[in-house]
Formats: sequence, C-alpha cells, structure tokens
Amino acid sequence: MRRPARRPRSTNCCGIDRRVRNDTPDPVPLAQALIRCRSVTPADDGAMAVLEAVLAPLGFACHRLRFGEVENLFAVRGESGPHLMFAGHTDVVPPGDAGWTADPFGGEVRDGLLYGRGATDMKGGVAAWITALQDVLARRPDLPGTLSLLITGDEEGPAIDGTTKVLDWLVEQSKIPDCCVVGEPTSKVVLGDTIKVGRRGSLNATLTVHGTQGHSAYPQRADNPVHRLVRVLASLTAEPLDQGSEFFEPTTLQVTSFDVGNAATNVIPAMAVARLNIRFNDLHTEASLTAHLRAALEGEAPRHGLAISCSGESFLTQPGPFVAALQGAVRAETGQEPKLDTGGGTSDARFIARYCPVAELGAVGATMHQADESTPVAELRALARLYARVIEEIVG
Amino acid sequence: MRRPARRPRSTNCCGIDRRVRNDTPDPVPLAQALIRCRSVTPADDGAMAVLEAVLAPLGFACHRLRFGEVENLFAVRGESGPHLMFAGHTDVVPPGDAGWTADPFGGEVRDGLLYGRGATDMKGGVAAWITALQDVLARRPDLPGTLSLLITGDEEGPAIDGTTKVLDWLVEQSKIPDCCVVGEPTSKVVLGDTIKVGRRGSLNATLTVHGTQGHSAYPQRADNPVHRLVRVLASLTAEPLDQGSEFFEPTTLQVTSFDVGNAATNVIPAMAVARLNIRFNDLHTEASLTAHLRAALEGEAPRHGLAISCSGESFLTQPGPFVAALQGAVRAETGQEPKLDTGGGTSDARFIARYCPVAELGAVGATMHQADESTPVAELRALARLYARVIEEIVG
Ligand SMILES: [Zn+2]
Ligand SMILES: [Zn+2]
Repeated sequence: MRRPARRPRSTNCCGIDRRVRNDTPDPVPLAQALIRCRSVTPADDGAMAVLEAVLAPLGFACHRLRFGEVENLFAVRGESGPHLMFAGHTDVVPPGDAGWTADPFGGEVRDGLLYGRGATDMKGGVAAWITALQDVLARRPDLPGTLSLLITGDEEGPAIDGTTKVLDWLVEQSKIPDCCVVGEPTSKVVLGDTIKVGRRGSLNATLTVHGTQGHSAYPQRADNPVHRLVRVLASLTAEPLDQGSEFFEPTTLQVTSFDVGNAATNVIPAMAVARLNIRFNDLHTEASLTAHLRAALEGEAPRHGLAISCSGESFLTQPGPFVAALQGAVRAETGQEPKLDTGGGTSDARFIARYCPVAELGAVGATMHQADESTPVAELRALARLYARVIEEIVG
Repeated sequence: MRRPARRPRSTNCCGIDRRVRNDTPDPVPLAQALIRCRSVTPADDGAMAVLEAVLAPLGFACHRLRFGEVENLFAVRGESGPHLMFAGHTDVVPPGDAGWTADPFGGEVRDGLLYGRGATDMKGGVAAWITALQDVLARRPDLPGTLSLLITGDEEGPAIDGTTKVLDWLVEQSKIPDCCVVGEPTSKVVLGDTIKVGRRGSLNATLTVHGTQGHSAYPQRADNPVHRLVRVLASLTAEPLDQGSEFFEPTTLQVTSFDVGNAATNVIPAMAVARLNIRFNDLHTEASLTAHLRAALEGEAPRHGLAISCSGESFLTQPGPFVAALQGAVRAETGQEPKLDTGGGTSDARFIARYCPVAELGAVGATMHQADESTPVAELRALARLYARVIEEIVG
C-alpha cells in the first residue's frame, strides 16, 4: 500500500502554483486546475471546489446550489450598486475518442498553447475572470459595487438544472445583477474581435395537414393533403421572412422534413406532415411566428394541426453604457474595434437576457468541442487583463 | 362409398339446360355454368372447357393458349372479312369473406337476379355474346365474315400472361381482327347507357431531388432539397394539365407521397423524394408527360432523378362505322341513346387498341367486385339480343 505523494509546498490544495499567483496574476494555473477536473456534463469532479478555494479568500460569499445532478455556484462580494455578474460554466463536452495529442484532462502547456477539454469553452474564460478579480481587488481592495459569478455545471447538457434555476434563486434572493458578462469563446480570429450582444431565437414547428383519402384516378372525390401542404410550404418559403435588422442576420426558415409514407401509387393519402426550423431575429417572436404559420395553414389547409416548440426567443442587448464599457476595454487592451454580433447558436445568455443586459465576450473559439482543444497562453493572459479593464470600467 | 349422382338428362356435360338452349337462346344457363367454375385469377377450374364445349358445335376452331399459369382461348369461325372479335375474361376477383347471401360460385337465380362472382364482370357478358352467336348462326348459318373470341384467364390479375400474349400470337398467325367488342360491364344505370370508346392512360413517377446537407441555423452553407421539391410540385399542381378533350375528362395529376424521413430538427436533409400518379387523356402521352416532369425538375432542381412507370397510354376509338354500329344496336334494342365515354380504370381494351378499333359494351356494373354480385336475368337476355344485333350489323 503506497501513501499518496505529498503535494509540493509551492502549490495549494487545488494544485495552483502560489508563486505565480502571488507575483503577477496568471490565469494559466487556475485554468489547468479546472481542466484537470473531469467535469463532463453533469459531472463536477471538484471543479466548483477549485473555484470556491480561490474566491473565498477574495471575500466572496459562495453559495453552492445543487439541482438534480448538477452542481452550481453563485459567489458574490459587495452589496451596493452597480452589480456586475460573470456567467460561465465548468462542465465540458466529452473529449471524444480520437485526435488528441495531449491528455484532454492534463492541462499540458506545449509551445505556448494550453491544451485540454474546456481550454476555450470555457474553463479558460472562468480562470481569466477570476484572475482579473484577483488583480483588481489586489490593487483596489475597497472597490465599490457588487461583483458576482454564476457558474453552472449544466451548460453543455440539457440546461435545465443549471443557469435557469440559479436565476430563479437569484430572483428569490433579490440578487439579480444590473448587467452580465458571459465568458463564452466569442472571438473569431483574434481576441476581442467580436462581442455577442444577442442571439437569434430558434423555433421548431410540426405542420400536419388532413385531407380525404381516395383513389388517385378520381381526385374529385378525394382531398389531397400533399397538394395543400405543398402550397403552404411554397408560400412560407417563397420570400425571406425579413432582410435582417441592425444587429441581426435575416431570419431563416428551413423545412427539415416532409413525410407521407404512402406506398400505394393509386391512393391519395389522408394526411401529410412537415417539420420546419426557424432561426429568428428581433423582428419576430414565438407568438408572431406561430401566428404567421397559422395564417399560412388557414389559407390553404383548413383542417390542420400545428405544434410549436420554441427553444429560445431572440434577444438583443441594445448599445448603451454596458456594451460601450466592453468595447472600450477591448479597444484599450487589443487596439482593435470589436464587432457587435448576434450570430451562432444558443448559450445560457438567452436565459440571463430575460433579467438584465447581457453580452458575451471571450477567447477565440476555433478549437472548441474539437480534439486538441487549446488556447494560447498569451491570449488567456490578455483575456484576464481585458476582463480586469471591464470590471474596473463598470464597477470602479 | 356413394356413387356420384347421375346428371339429369336435360343438361349436357357442362350443366347447361338443353331445353332452354334448343328453344330460345338463353344466356342464363351458360352464365351459371361459368359461375360454378371457381376461376379466381389465375385458376381456370374448367371455365375454358365450358366455352369450348359450346363454341365447337357452332363451328369455331378453338385454340387453347396457356402462358405461365394462365389458360387463354382463341376461338375463330370463318376466314373472310370483316373480322369481328369479342374479348373477355373468365377469371374473377376473390369473393371476399363477408356480405354474400348467395353462394358466390352457386349461380343461384332468386327474384329475377342471377347471383355469383362474375355475374356482371364478366361471365355474364361472355355468356351473352356466345348466346348471341348461337342465335345469329342458328338463323343465318351461312353468315359471311370472321367471328372470333379472345377469352383470357388473367384480366383481373397482373395481365401479363393473358390478352397481350394472345395478341402477340394473333400477330404471328395474321389473325388480328378488324374491330373488337370488349364485354366489360360498362353500363352505368340501365343497359346500353354507356359505350366506352377509350380509357385514360396512367403513369407513375418518382421524383428525387438532391441537395446539400447542413445545419438548419446556417442554410446559406447548405442546399435544401425539400424547398426545391416543394417548388417543383407547387408548379406541377398549380394549374390543371388540360381542360379535357372531346371524349375525355381532364387529365389529373396527384402527388401520392412526399418523403424525407429526417428526424433531426437542426439538420437540412440531403435528399427528398415525391411520387405522383397521372391519369391522362389523348392530349398527352408517356413521352410528353415525361418531358413535362423533366422540365419542371430542371427549372427548380438541377440535381434530380426521375423514374417513370407507365401502365398504359390513353386510347380512343374515334367515332366511325364501328362505333355507329354499336350505337345503332343499342338504340334498336333499348330505345335509348348511348353515351360515348372514356372514364374509369383500365381494362384489357388498352392492349387491343394498339391493333384495331375497340369499344367496350356490357352489363350494368353496379355490383362488380362486390358481395352479392348479381345481374338481372332480363338484362342478361337483353344483352344477348343486343350483342346479336351488333354481330349482324357488323358481320352480316
Ligand atoms: Zn460554452
Ligand atoms: Zn372485367
């Protein structure tokens, strides 16, 4: 029976190198400590404990909120306004089977790159924000305002026991922030080139058209639902729903399936079903799109069914002091003008947008969810400096 | 061990009542004899032997032509022109399980109705034609011209080893007739109200449209084949193909299925398939419709497949002496003006139409293919008299 090896003196219980932290705040050791937790959704594997160990000494009150299988953390420091929240996640997608040249849970630094699942999405971003807090609070221990972090372990999963439930809890506790930065890897080519200020909404619809079955030689005695549904879909797809708006791409409507399943060539079927997906901008809502689909069906197919499943309304954080502060921080740190963008898929920002202005600003996401996910060490340090500027700009 | 009961003297080997036949030609006993053969396609069960037994004494040379499992008979009398052929079938559809108050193979006469599978479609018609031959030839044994019968046992089945193969044989034997009456039950309400002088053609098409699979959030990187196929079908079904022609109803085009089978709501599929059926009149052909479908596909979906299966071109026997003879016979026998019609499904007339003028004239078809299929005895006798007039009019 071997005794566990003693930890070297220079690292704390979380394996973070004290010397680097005590000297110049460096996000790399904290990012490595997080990567070494095998926190594939919904597993936590100690990731929240790593965060608590760093945040508590900075004066943060740490609230562990477990919902179902999911660990969540809300950490908060201060009581006065303004209240700036950082939202992120410590869960990661599975590493997959092939293509890694580094241990996905090793946190290896090689040729200036930090490797590991979550390096960009988004253990790196969480580490950068906390490092920024260390930096700012070391220099300005009496910083006014309220700083908080909402960290979930269920962003890559069903997103049921994560951010939404913590937000419910924040409402109960009257702790809803004034604004929120989400640390998703939004940069496209170089750090800070893109700030996401919104996302399109996504809606799935199932259209069912009923007709009257009959013999294909005697269509006057039948009512062909395929013809009706073809007309409905031809009208829905004839013209784009819009030409885009100030910050959004045009809304897209795609028919993803059309199914009848009638093998008899001499039979007009009784029913036809189509499915479609709409990615919509701020010119539409679930309600307006439902009405649009209903009108198209009413016009061509009085006997129909319409089932809607909306996985998120679109949202947009209008330009204003909050977005300007993010832009200013990017400009100061990187020298370039960030583009305000609303492209891409969904993130937990869609939930937070119901309560306060929210924007996403983070690392270059090129390798996210891929083999050999990695982030340049220099970029991670620049992100921490950028976040420090954001904190001082908004709270200071 | 019981000995088989002796047949009553008054019936011959086929069970036909000699007394009636020798007195006034009556189609009922022959129709009963045929109904008592359980000749569900492709079974013959002695039906052709019944016919031979009646036709041979009238001077017909009987050629039994067996193709595959199917018995066929070509019977011919005379060598000079004109050559009038009668075409019919002794096979029947299955009786089905329920709804019969009479034995489907019993040939029962009750309350003036002859019951049995094939009573109208079309053992009754075959019996009526042969009875007409007996009548005419008894009165005019030196009748000029050529009379023939093409009787198949494969009309209700796949129609592969029946009429088409006999027609091939007739071509080889140089025995193609000058005109042909098909004894299908064409009358709608009263005997002779309708003569079918043509039938619509029928064509099945499978349209396959290829696109490029992609994520439904980024349709600009994909090519949605469902949208293309919807446009193709919307254009094909927007307007009727025609308004009908002198003797034909308008052509109909019905999309009978549309299938994608894509369960993923966020995926644009790679392929979409539709099937359609066209019932077409004499304004179209398989070739012209294929070109029409191809043009619609070319316009909206350059990457496509088109598979065509045509089960028969349309045909029309133009008004002329042959049709006029049928009309005159109906007028003389029933006192009413027959309507020239091209409606309904297909019959073997479509094969014969390739070689000579053909028209269909027969009993009221109301009960065909149903339980308690039956024909009024009086109507069957009137049909025999009507057929006798046709024979004398054309050959006499
Ligand atoms: Zn993420
Ligand atoms: Zn028939």
